[in-house]
Amino acid sequence: MKKIAVCGVTGAVGKEVLRCLGHLPFGELSLTCYASERSAGKEVQTPFGTQTIERFSMEECRGFDVVFLCVSGSFSSKYGKQLSIQNEVVIDNSSYFRLDDDVPLIIPEINLSRCKGHRLISNPNCTTAILAVALYPIYRQFSLKRVIVSTYQATSGSGQAAMDELASQTANYLKSGKAGHRQFAHPIPFNLLPAIDRFEANGYTREEMKVVHETRKIFDDDSILLSTTAVRVPTFRAHAESVTIQTQHPVTPDAVREILQNAPGVVVKDDPQEQVYPMPLTSTGQYDVEVGRIRANPIFGECGLDFFVCGDQLLKGAALNATQIALQLFDANHFKQ
Amino acid sequence: MKKIAVCGVTGAVGKEVLRCLGHLPFGELSLTCYASERSAGKEVQTPFGTQTIERFSMEECRGFDVVFLCVSGSFSSKYGKQLSIQNEVVIDNSSYFRLDDDVPLIIPEINLSRCKGHRLISNPNCTTAILAVALYPIYRQFSLKRVIVSTYQATSGSGQAAMDELASQTANYLKSGKAGHRQFAHPIPFNLLPAIDRFEANGYTREEMKVVHETRKIFDDDSILLSTTAVRVPTFRAHAESVTIQTQHPVTPDAVREILQNAPGVVVKDDPQEQVYPMPLTSTGQYDVEVGRIRANPIFGECGLDFFVCGDQLLKGAALNATQIALQLFDANHFKQ
Repeated sequence: MKKIAVCGVTGAVGKEVLRCLGHLPFGELSLTCYASERSAGKEVQTPFGTQTIERFSMEECRGFDVVFLCVSGSFSSKYGKQLSIQNEVVIDNSSYFRLDDDVPLIIPEINLSRCKGHRLISNPNCTTAILAVALYPIYRQFSLKRVIVSTYQATSGSGQAAMDELASQTANYLKSGKAGHRQFAHPIPFNLLPAIDRFEANGYTREEMKVVHETRKIFDDDSILLSTTAVRVPTFRAHAESVTIQTQHPVTPDAVREILQNAPGVVVKDDPQEQVYPMPLTSTGQYDVEVGRIRANPIFGECGLDFFVCGDQLLKGAALNATQIALQLFDANHFKQ
Repeated sequence: MKKIAVCGVTGAVGKEVLRCLGHLPFGELSLTCYASERSAGKEVQTPFGTQTIERFSMEECRGFDVVFLCVSGSFSSKYGKQLSIQNEVVIDNSSYFRLDDDVPLIIPEINLSRCKGHRLISNPNCTTAILAVALYPIYRQFSLKRVIVSTYQATSGSGQAAMDELASQTANYLKSGKAGHRQFAHPIPFNLLPAIDRFEANGYTREEMKVVHETRKIFDDDSILLSTTAVRVPTFRAHAESVTIQTQHPVTPDAVREILQNAPGVVVKDDPQEQVYPMPLTSTGQYDVEVGRIRANPIFGECGLDFFVCGDQLLKGAALNATQIALQLFDANHFKQ
């Protein structure tokens, strides 16, 4: 019997972790649901039946095989390390430990083996995870010199309240021509915000720099040059990314298509004549990241390639990747090593 | 008295041409409004009073100083050349003549002088015009090696019916969780379509290749390497573009900001700490194209720069540019040369 705890079950990511635990072949497990005092005592629907939410406390949260942290970075910074001592494995969804040299940053399709000897594991940024799962098979074959990414990020990246704001303020706008905002710096309906997370001194946002630093860490290659522009768009929960790469070795769209067709975690959606390409509409709720619009980019000679990816921000971008890490650690007998 | 005709006054672009004619300092003018048989006889509101729409005919449409064609490429192909013989100047909004060596492709801020000796003038693609007006001042100072563009294009680019579909189907989706589609290949509410116009053999769309070919023609420089990814987003009428450039000479954000602050047709919106950046919300209805998120892109060493532009697709992307061409030709005494 696998003992699993989820901290933050009322948030957008926590809810999806519960669902993924039900969908993935974990076998028998005992589940404990934690949230803040505000939600403690309430009931939550899980794939394992209705459960009462418990108030999180360090004293109680011990002895689990896996603890999922689907909470804030400040929570993770306060409790993450200690929880990883009194439990077998902690998988943290926040950004707090991602660039910590002592904490592996894991996408199971890419670098699961780096978990070895670690009890605290970090789950990547959503934009990074969706990009990396498509990019890594290309990187392995052709190596990478430059990666240029422009994102089309869903409101789910800012949490449930942000998704609710998109729906309610869009309705307001259609009624009155006006939309308010609380979760975003400006109204999001029928608008775009080229600013996600706070700005750094170099003019990039933290979100944009996460893609740079995390991709390099996951690929274990600091020589890759990346630049990202992160844009919030009025969609609900699938992130899209327009990607231009310069490989080290000559690359062709056909070769990339074949590699990606055989790669785990991605599905090739690339039949433009039939209007088949990645879209939020089709990738929402899907485990695999859609890749399409694969074409030779002549501005980098024989080493240029453009493509478009779309993946569910709450799934491969968060909850699915985290639960896949846990499942594969169980399969690999990571526990009680 | 300037004699001006607008063909296609009931379309999204034609309507905006009428408005721009009223806003720009044309002085006294006599306006004739043409449309197809279906709209002939109806009334249209113009800045010069209510007018009755006339049915277009080649026999009648002659002797004007300027004829604006805000109609389809097939209309332009059929009538454009002949109209330019029996009128002083024809300004065509369709794509039909844009790459014709005998027809200048004009953005007044960049290459007005190329109109000299021509009676048929082509107005650029919307995405190209919005990009070029911001890019040209940078190009003049630093020259350009590579330009990588990902677009966030409003539904207005597909016409009034497409904008109406965004509104009506968004309302449907909020009510029922479902959205239909007629103007687009897939539902547009809360979705993204990485496919605008038809696909070419190289895997790019015509829309994407327009940006390549038209930018080179407008800048009169075929050495610039460009790649574009064109994506339809659920916004109404302002196009945004995420732009990464590699210049020939070292470039800095401060230098670019200063150049753009003094450039015609653009306004710098670049104070990220105060959440000031280009957005559809602020650029809709504005004549100037907003430029912001200007930052050094380290992946091209000292020659890398990223920025974000946003401009009204129906204004600088279409009607405004066309009427600016006409106004400046009047100012330059282009007529009766």
